[in-house]
Amino acid sequence: MIFVLKPGVPLEKIEQFQQMIESRGFKTFLSTGTEHNVVCLIGNTAAIDLDLVVQNSDIVEYGKRVTEPYKAVNRTVHPEDTMVNAGGVTIGEGLFQVIAGPCSVESEEQIIEVAKSVKASGATMLRGGAFKPRTSPYAFMGLHEEGLRLLLTAKKETGLPVVTEIMNQTQLPLFEDIDVIQVGARNMQNFDLLKEVGRFNKPVLLKRGLANTLEELLMSAEYIMSAGNSQVILCERGIRTFETATRNTLDLSVIPLLKQKSHLPVIVDPSHAAGLRGLVAPLARAAVAVGADGLMIETHNDPARALCDGAQSLDLVQFRDFMKDIKRRISFEGKRVAAN
Amino acid sequence: MIFVLKPGVPLEKIEQFQQMIESRGFKTFLSTGTEHNVVCLIGNTAAIDLDLVVQNSDIVEYGKRVTEPYKAVNRTVHPEDTMVNAGGVTIGEGLFQVIAGPCSVESEEQIIEVAKSVKASGATMLRGGAFKPRTSPYAFMGLHEEGLRLLLTAKKETGLPVVTEIMNQTQLPLFEDIDVIQVGARNMQNFDLLKEVGRFNKPVLLKRGLANTLEELLMSAEYIMSAGNSQVILCERGIRTFETATRNTLDLSVIPLLKQKSHLPVIVDPSHAAGLRGLVAPLARAAVAVGADGLMIETHNDPARALCDGAQSLDLVQFRDFMKDIKRRISFEGKRVAAN
Amino acid sequence: MIFVLKPGVPLEKIEQFQQMIESRGFKTFLSTGTEHNVVCLIGNTAAIDLDLVVQNSDIVEYGKRVTEPYKAVNRTVHPEDTMVNAGGVTIGEGLFQVIAGPCSVESEEQIIEVAKSVKASGATMLRGGAFKPRTSPYAFMGLHEEGLRLLLTAKKETGLPVVTEIMNQTQLPLFEDIDVIQVGARNMQNFDLLKEVGRFNKPVLLKRGLANTLEELLMSAEYIMSAGNSQVILCERGIRTFETATRNTLDLSVIPLLKQKSHLPVIVDPSHAAGLRGLVAPLARAAVAVGADGLMIETHNDPARALCDGAQSLDLVQFRDFMKDIKRRISFEGKRVAAN
Amino acid sequence: MIFVLKPGVPLEKIEQFQQMIESRGFKTFLSTGTEHNVVCLIGNTAAIDLDLVVQNSDIVEYGKRVTEPYKAVNRTVHPEDTMVNAGGVTIGEGLFQVIAGPCSVESEEQIIEVAKSVKASGATMLRGGAFKPRTSPYAFMGLHEEGLRLLLTAKKETGLPVVTEIMNQTQLPLFEDIDVIQVGARNMQNFDLLKEVGRFNKPVLLKRGLANTLEELLMSAEYIMSAGNSQVILCERGIRTFETATRNTLDLSVIPLLKQKSHLPVIVDPSHAAGLRGLVAPLARAAVAVGADGLMIETHNDPARALCDGAQSLDLVQFRDFMKDIKRRISFEGKRVAAN
Repeated sequence: MIFVLKPGVPLEKIEQFQQMIESRGFKTFLSTGTEHNVVCLIGNTAAIDLDLVVQNSDIVEYGKRVTEPYKAVNRTVHPEDTMVNAGGVTIGEGLFQVIAGPCSVESEEQIIEVAKSVKASGATMLRGGAFKPRTSPYAFMGLHEEGLRLLLTAKKETGLPVVTEIMNQTQLPLFEDIDVIQVGARNMQNFDLLKEVGRFNKPVLLKRGLANTLEELLMSAEYIMSAGNSQVILCERGIRTFETATRNTLDLSVIPLLKQKSHLPVIVDPSHAAGLRGLVAPLARAAVAVGADGLMIETHNDPARALCDGAQSLDLVQFRDFMKDIKRRISFEGKRVAAN
Repeated sequence: MIFVLKPGVPLEKIEQFQQMIESRGFKTFLSTGTEHNVVCLIGNTAAIDLDLVVQNSDIVEYGKRVTEPYKAVNRTVHPEDTMVNAGGVTIGEGLFQVIAGPCSVESEEQIIEVAKSVKASGATMLRGGAFKPRTSPYAFMGLHEEGLRLLLTAKKETGLPVVTEIMNQTQLPLFEDIDVIQVGARNMQNFDLLKEVGRFNKPVLLKRGLANTLEELLMSAEYIMSAGNSQVILCERGIRTFETATRNTLDLSVIPLLKQKSHLPVIVDPSHAAGLRGLVAPLARAAVAVGADGLMIETHNDPARALCDGAQSLDLVQFRDFMKDIKRRISFEGKRVAAN
Repeated sequence: MIFVLKPGVPLEKIEQFQQMIESRGFKTFLSTGTEHNVVCLIGNTAAIDLDLVVQNSDIVEYGKRVTEPYKAVNRTVHPEDTMVNAGGVTIGEGLFQVIAGPCSVESEEQIIEVAKSVKASGATMLRGGAFKPRTSPYAFMGLHEEGLRLLLTAKKETGLPVVTEIMNQTQLPLFEDIDVIQVGARNMQNFDLLKEVGRFNKPVLLKRGLANTLEELLMSAEYIMSAGNSQVILCERGIRTFETATRNTLDLSVIPLLKQKSHLPVIVDPSHAAGLRGLVAPLARAAVAVGADGLMIETHNDPARALCDGAQSLDLVQFRDFMKDIKRRISFEGKRVAAN
Repeated sequence: MIFVLKPGVPLEKIEQFQQMIESRGFKTFLSTGTEHNVVCLIGNTAAIDLDLVVQNSDIVEYGKRVTEPYKAVNRTVHPEDTMVNAGGVTIGEGLFQVIAGPCSVESEEQIIEVAKSVKASGATMLRGGAFKPRTSPYAFMGLHEEGLRLLLTAKKETGLPVVTEIMNQTQLPLFEDIDVIQVGARNMQNFDLLKEVGRFNKPVLLKRGLANTLEELLMSAEYIMSAGNSQVILCERGIRTFETATRNTLDLSVIPLLKQKSHLPVIVDPSHAAGLRGLVAPLARAAVAVGADGLMIETHNDPARALCDGAQSLDLVQFRDFMKDIKRRISFEGKRVAAN
């Protein structure tokens, strides 16, 4: 962290400033220039409120952090790609995974039909919501424990590892047999939940919040990793902008940036981003090309009767055709879809 | 809900469409026009996925909801202003309240000094964080239970009702003696938490999320009210935009809109919105003028040493001067600050 | 256009409302329902201020347009893809074009070196700014007429058609020999300029504004087409959001949407969107995969000394490698890069 | 401008870096630290592409500008408030002005009726569009020269100075008798137009663009001032965000920030920001309280028949009542509305 001083500050005031900073446990040094002097801090400055120091000093022009605030997720600390093992399926570094399934688990027949079909088409993991976050308290919120049970039945039938969303930390005991715990966009900064899934011994799929920056996403991953769990998969699913033609704006630029700044695998959910079935395939193609490690695709046996988000779901035939194309593209990129 | 049909759809297909909708429990009727026909639905359409119906039908041009999706919070259902009684202090309909205090409770001396001073200056409620949501897992997160205990000590000393933030539902038993439970911006769509505070018998201060619309804020209030708790205070605290000169963009337009669409009291937090101490007073003046029912102002005995968000805190002298001006403005608006 | 009426409006008031609308030259008809009645308008409603009618009537609940406001650019009016012939090079429907060149034309040596090199690497058109829009009045603004002259010299040497930006309509006479006139993001809603390039007999490359919607982009294209010029190429180059890790957020979702709603070719400029050289290649790969008809890539012989935007420019070797990869991808998509 | 170097760079490479920078006409000096060294630049660094230097050097961690890029508009350069004389009416430093009138000049009767009425109610300047920027090429675009003539007739009748929008620089000769030339939001970065109005001897009302930052607004004012015209009035009129309940989000935080960073007067246009008549008065009240120097209010003799933007216009009676309230507030702030 450095502080650029205003011009013409007398040395005495600079020394007082340095002493104030050093009294808080940091080492400082002064770089003198012809116009501006710069005070540099050494030590773990993550806890310093930069704006505060600037506002409370009458000699500081501005301050700036030199180092990134995340450590465990930082590629400089861990140069190799992290490979996440999700119920026997590995994601990361050339191993591309496709997670498919309905927005909500609705019945045993439904989830088993979908699971068998998406597996046959080439999906390697099964998704399905049991606890559903809904904007309206009057909307369908999932089958809860029964939904988890049906997911596990579908896993047993097909061998597909299962991914499903957690809504709060009291539900964790129910997730013992789930392969990947999803923390949804609205919970990306539910810090207590992040800490608890960080203490739990399961891979976590962390979705980017609707209005969260790349750095905030990495800081939320840092919560999970700093609590002891290094099995984190990042997921881009669209951000909120002024554009109304799509539900959200899928931000594919963050994929190569996340891969560069962090060692964690990154997947893309085009279904929730666009909110329109017709955009799922083109955006998935773009996601493969931009370097994502996987896709999450909403797929339903009967989208017209889906209890939520049917408008963005592919049906089973559409998904089969979709996978034919996507598999060609994955191998074009020199990656492979590897089931366990 | 209405569906505008494409031109030239044969009557037979329209009837099939109506039967499909009616099979799901709604009544429909057809309005015939020269170019477009319109199918209208009657019943509680909150659970219908509008986009889905449009996408799955080859005869529908588009659909549109006719009624607002919130009911309990809707002013049409409850035309009079709701008055919230927060530990003896009433907010709403001409009774303006000023909530002041530090970002975090740091020590007994600190919170008592701040509480006495802000009370003397005219604040009517005390805020102070015990559980602090922080972007970084390495930042100070509050004193937790000890923080709540110190807040209650300050309440005992000064008589000021206390407001403090909850982070997750397992903490609710600790909030028995707290006067107002704050649900922060990052938890505005933590639906399980909303339901639980809705079952708890305490007023709730609900902050708008960084990227949430007015309608979503009202839907989150609806979660609380539909669970049985009608004591809800809404709070605007800035939204995320492309502007970087301020931390967030305070959206004062929503104050008169919220007052028009809902019967709930609405307050403004200019401290978190701007993130700059110098903007707190002008934005607070604007909030009074635009019709807010109260203010939440970060105030600290020693902002330069605050453990969080010091850059936006007023010190005790600044707050005293601030209140002199704000009190003149409140009475100019024909409202009054009423302590209990 | 339809107006949904409030419940319980007496027939007399409805008839007055219909007469008011009809007095302005529209035909109306009434669809009666059990709860809401709906008044539908027939005629060219583009000039009606929908919000105004709603606000000024005490019987209307809300109104909604049924048809899209753009006509000439609408695919429903012109189902086949428009092919734009840009100085002998055709873009659209399977013919993919890569436009390369520096942000600014700086000297004869520079532009000829770049032109020869990018042609050898596979680019089919040459870009280079002669009139540069710059945020600061103190920044380099291009070589103006001299820049245009040098571009034409480079065209003569290489045969590459040239694309360059116009800043205002008084410059049009200078653009007689330019192959494609670029209207930049900041001028997307400079309506007088749009009309004038619409009267000029040259293809226009229209960039999306930083905060403009897909519909507004199409309306600006409509300005050009309605003035008589149907040779319009649309270009996505990033929108402004809260994310600060990239200069703008490239919105690839609009590519398939624009192709669906309009018949015009659509290209992508990843250089300006990201502002970071390292993102140009992955985003270009995504653009090819998502269905764009072309790319615009900033390329410079010596980016370290470029007079503007060097940080996002590829050097000539990087561009050569880039094109090797992109050409494989274009043919993977079943398209071809066709020079004239 | 400073460059923070990566750790462990050998002195030889640092010296090469300094020589490279100095070869471009800057003086540099090196501040050595224990972890990071910092190279500082002296000279007019406005033309340096910061990102470029960082990307092209393998020894620089990051760079940062120390000084603000605007000079003429900067309050540090010109500490006193600029007072703009607009046709005999002065705006700035305690002199508050209210500009009222219709979106478009529609007829002589209309503009004279409105002018007389708003003058009687207390407005001090008249607005009215003659050249109207419209999203659709099929919408009403104003009466052009005839509109300007009618405005001047209304000025003659009432003595009110007139403000009207210019669309492109070729229209300037028509604006000889206009008192204030408005550059609209869509033209805020039409740099050629800014330069031309900067060479013209008339006050300029510069509206903030829909997606432009405070700094960009000041840079556009810098264009005008650096061309020789120091009579600039800034205007906030709402920015584009994800919120759809209002047309734009009025950003009142920028008013005190602009007053602090610049010496230019700042006014607010709540009519265009909200797009809803019912929000004009509360937002205007907030604008007065936050410290604006004036208001621009759309007012029409018959909003229900206005040819554009009627939904946000006050009628003449509403404006009279509005002004009664606003005048009380202006004098509460210790300011006055001063006609010439």
